[in-house]
Amino acid sequence: MAHDETALRQAHDELYRALNARDLDAMTAVWVQEPWVECVHPGWPALRGWNAIRKSWQAIFQSPSRLAITVSDVRVRVLDTTALVTCVERIKSQQQEFLDTTLAQTVNVFVRRDDGWKLVHHQASTMPTTSPLAVPESDSIN
Amino acid sequence: MAHDETALRQAHDELYRALNARDLDAMTAVWVQEPWVECVHPGWPALRGWNAIRKSWQAIFQSPSRLAITVSDVRVRVLDTTALVTCVERIKSQQQEFLDTTLAQTVNVFVRRDDGWKLVHHQASTMPTTSPLAVPESDSIN
Repeated sequence: MAHDETALRQAHDELYRALNARDLDAMTAVWVQEPWVECVHPGWPALRGWNAIRKSWQAIFQSPSRLAITVSDVRVRVLDTTALVTCVERIKSQQQEFLDTTLAQTVNVFVRRDDGWKLVHHQASTMPTTSPLAVPESDSIN
Repeated sequence: MAHDETALRQAHDELYRALNARDLDAMTAVWVQEPWVECVHPGWPALRGWNAIRKSWQAIFQSPSRLAITVSDVRVRVLDTTALVTCVERIKSQQQEFLDTTLAQTVNVFVRRDDGWKLVHHQASTMPTTSPLAVPESDSIN
């Protein structure tokens, strides 16, 4: 279990390394390349299947807007041969002289394959600065 | 596997029935009531732990804004003793004479327990009407 958690954090780190480096080959190696996997970029509808997801990363990597993403509050939960890794993404984007920073609450679902933990679902939800209702505090015992 | 998919769709239906009925007991029965489960309502930061999640549903159910949620594009993927169910939520909210409709792309992660499939992660991502980049079409073979 401790080994799984270390391996999962490495797979998770590699996702964001590939993203920040605009490295499509490395991004490809992170994912299960099958037609049922899903990806929800912030504010996008769901993309289904590796082909569509690969094209989306290609479009993001070729965009004139530069992205730099750092993650915090990383939580790992191993569930048998599946695992959930949740985090907060701080997304800094720069297009010419315009700088923008947004936060996204993100879940990454990995499955254990022969060649390691591979991503099957990535979903980043934009976090507005205000919430519709008073937000209950998360449980203190985790 | 077919039995699992039927049971999962029933658990998923029960989540939205409880939500629309503002039925906190039924919502409680849908979830794993442990301190590591997570819930991301549209535009909220992540809530961690059943206590915090229960309080959020209570606040939503007691809010003067009435919600009516219908789901479409439901996809089920069983991964061993874990399963992903994704859907699009159409959220109609009414507060006095004000009506609002939003769409959210949602993932619900269930785990198989002795008493059936139970929810451990709910995350609804608001879908804006426009996307930051041209969206690649999802794979045609699913």
